[in-house]
Amino acid sequence: MATLGLIEYKDASPRVREVYDDIMATRKTDYINNFWKALANDPATLKRTWEDIKQIMAPGALDLLTKELIYVAVSVSNQCGYCIASHTASARAKGVTDDMFRELMAIVGMANETNRLASGYQIEIDERYKT
Amino acid sequence: MATLGLIEYKDASPRVREVYDDIMATRKTDYINNFWKALANDPATLKRTWEDIKQIMAPGALDLLTKELIYVAVSVSNQCGYCIASHTASARAKGVTDDMFRELMAIVGMANETNRLASGYQIEIDERYKT
Amino acid sequence: MATLGLIEYKDASPRVREVYDDIMATRKTDYINNFWKALANDPATLKRTWEDIKQIMAPGALDLLTKELIYVAVSVSNQCGYCIASHTASARAKGVTDDMFRELMAIVGMANETNRLASGYQIEIDERYKT
Amino acid sequence: MATLGLIEYKDASPRVREVYDDIMATRKTDYINNFWKALANDPATLKRTWEDIKQIMAPGALDLLTKELIYVAVSVSNQCGYCIASHTASARAKGVTDDMFRELMAIVGMANETNRLASGYQIEIDERYKT
Amino acid sequence: MATLGLIEYKDASPRVREVYDDIMATRKTDYINNFWKALANDPATLKRTWEDIKQIMAPGALDLLTKELIYVAVSVSNQCGYCIASHTASARAKGVTDDMFRELMAIVGMANETNRLASGYQIEIDERYKT
Amino acid sequence: MATLGLIEYKDASPRVREVYDDIMATRKTDYINNFWKALANDPATLKRTWEDIKQIMAPGALDLLTKELIYVAVSVSNQCGYCIASHTASARAKGVTDDMFRELMAIVGMANETNRLASGYQIEIDERYKT
Repeated sequence: MATLGLIEYKDASPRVREVYDDIMATRKTDYINNFWKALANDPATLKRTWEDIKQIMAPGALDLLTKELIYVAVSVSNQCGYCIASHTASARAKGVTDDMFRELMAIVGMANETNRLASGYQIEIDERYKT
Repeated sequence: MATLGLIEYKDASPRVREVYDDIMATRKTDYINNFWKALANDPATLKRTWEDIKQIMAPGALDLLTKELIYVAVSVSNQCGYCIASHTASARAKGVTDDMFRELMAIVGMANETNRLASGYQIEIDERYKT
Repeated sequence: MATLGLIEYKDASPRVREVYDDIMATRKTDYINNFWKALANDPATLKRTWEDIKQIMAPGALDLLTKELIYVAVSVSNQCGYCIASHTASARAKGVTDDMFRELMAIVGMANETNRLASGYQIEIDERYKT
Repeated sequence: MATLGLIEYKDASPRVREVYDDIMATRKTDYINNFWKALANDPATLKRTWEDIKQIMAPGALDLLTKELIYVAVSVSNQCGYCIASHTASARAKGVTDDMFRELMAIVGMANETNRLASGYQIEIDERYKT
Repeated sequence: MATLGLIEYKDASPRVREVYDDIMATRKTDYINNFWKALANDPATLKRTWEDIKQIMAPGALDLLTKELIYVAVSVSNQCGYCIASHTASARAKGVTDDMFRELMAIVGMANETNRLASGYQIEIDERYKT
Repeated sequence: MATLGLIEYKDASPRVREVYDDIMATRKTDYINNFWKALANDPATLKRTWEDIKQIMAPGALDLLTKELIYVAVSVSNQCGYCIASHTASARAKGVTDDMFRELMAIVGMANETNRLASGYQIEIDERYKT
């Protein structure tokens, strides 16, 4: 069970319910996932994190699907079990196909490999890459 | 300097030159960056890594630009200096605008934050996310 | 089950029992947690690790509670499941309140975010920060 | 140089200046460090990050000095060069003594060691640590 | 369950079966582990990864057992649960004794500790180590 | 410069000199590298770390060269600049050939790739790997 437990809607304070309501309205769902129910133990962090995510994940120069792919890429690279499970589900719900997922995994694996080859060989940055 | 040094085209063996030629032809450039010149000390790894990268980064279900964004995201998350420098340059050359870059950074930062919140609160995976 | 199994007190060699006894005496408990029971398969590492921990976690310029908070912070940042569970329990036993825990999580999340923003934007170190 | 460059006060937009002014007022300094000058290329992220930091690092259940120690601990664990330099300077300015720093480093090193011992020995979580 | 499921031999395409057959022949076993059954959802990645592993893990300047120890070391350092479990099993099957395993764990733990001490103290690289 | 500076032999306390003397005697060298000179600011950590390293890196079930390869593997995986430089130099001094180094890098890169593939595909551990 989560360290401080999960807070269900019916047990939530008005301040937490306000965030839950916004999550459900923004995401057009009636499901609040465990991440938010755990953060609800700290209403300030819940609100701040949700506001940040809402701002960051809104379509902009990058579309929603691309943003979700990036989120999964980081979570896989960090090997965060919860985040991989939840963002993979979310990515698929947003239209990430099996083929996209396969290519995503291949890139994440490759980047993790070449990151270490670059560091391990102690490769100096090319002059032209110094901004 | 790189651990085993950098191998310039003029000093390269035919086996290495073949890879260099393919890199330049595929990328439509006459520039070989330090990553490949360092890997050239191990022709088998050079060839294997280049063939893998060529296969993985070719447009497929995901377009080239999205793939490059994902590569940068992983490199930043891993904090690999060389890879951030080279793939950021590469991403910009491929059309990643400043606005895209800003959004990319915001997502990478956010994902790294929520990855730790999820782990730190020891949040169990929602039943519906268990594939 | 742990790779080499867990060694219970009754099955332990005198050399291992000596460490177990010291752990129980130092911590004023009769409980030996799985970490030590697993390390007991390597008595040299068991003894060395315990002696190191005892030295490092003793109150000094930093008090015990602060030290435990730092231990949790690192474990969460590394996303080590066992360590998060055991050190969170330990922190709470030592007086870390729910409010302290909430603030701790918020800082760990934030630091992980800004660490990547700093790396991703390739920010050079301010002259005044160069020691 | 930072990817998108550093934005000095005199070149900043009103929206960025507003954040700079708040940073200087809150921190009682006339120095804006490179981190903020780089983020200023993305005013939304600049404002969001600063507001978050201000909220999270304000004294609460944990005092300012403890919070700064935790920030350094995470940055060292992640091996973020910029963040180690800037937060170590900040910690010292806030009263972290050499002795505190020494103990901090010892704990961070130790936690990184035991995190891997726990994972490497595949130690199962003690029943009593399951919250 | 794995994101895209596991593909059993009887359900595999000829292209996947070819790789499975080579794995079984090379490893002199009739067991295909879950890693390959999951990758089989992406035959290109399956084939590429297997060919790479086969090339890299073949005895060369380093013998098989040393190579397997290095693989475990990285997996433990990254805290990848699946990889620790599978490569530890594989290492033991290849002749890694309990004593070797104990020493391996001790080194991995120690290296993770000193890595952070080096970064945390911001130690500059000795002139003689600059290649 | 290192956060607390580097302590030269001539400026060292008797307690620090004793460790320096042991390092030089054990390693049959008159060179003390920056890592120890930085740690010397904390004589307790200096002594503890040196004693641990001496114990762990002594030939046992694994020979010295294998141990050094593992140390480099972890340092590369963690991308610790100082540690990669110093342990690569140390490995070469102990007899690691260019060919061994090449194979080492290839394995470290590969393990980092497959670690993420395993996590990203959310592959469950095979029954037979559960110890």
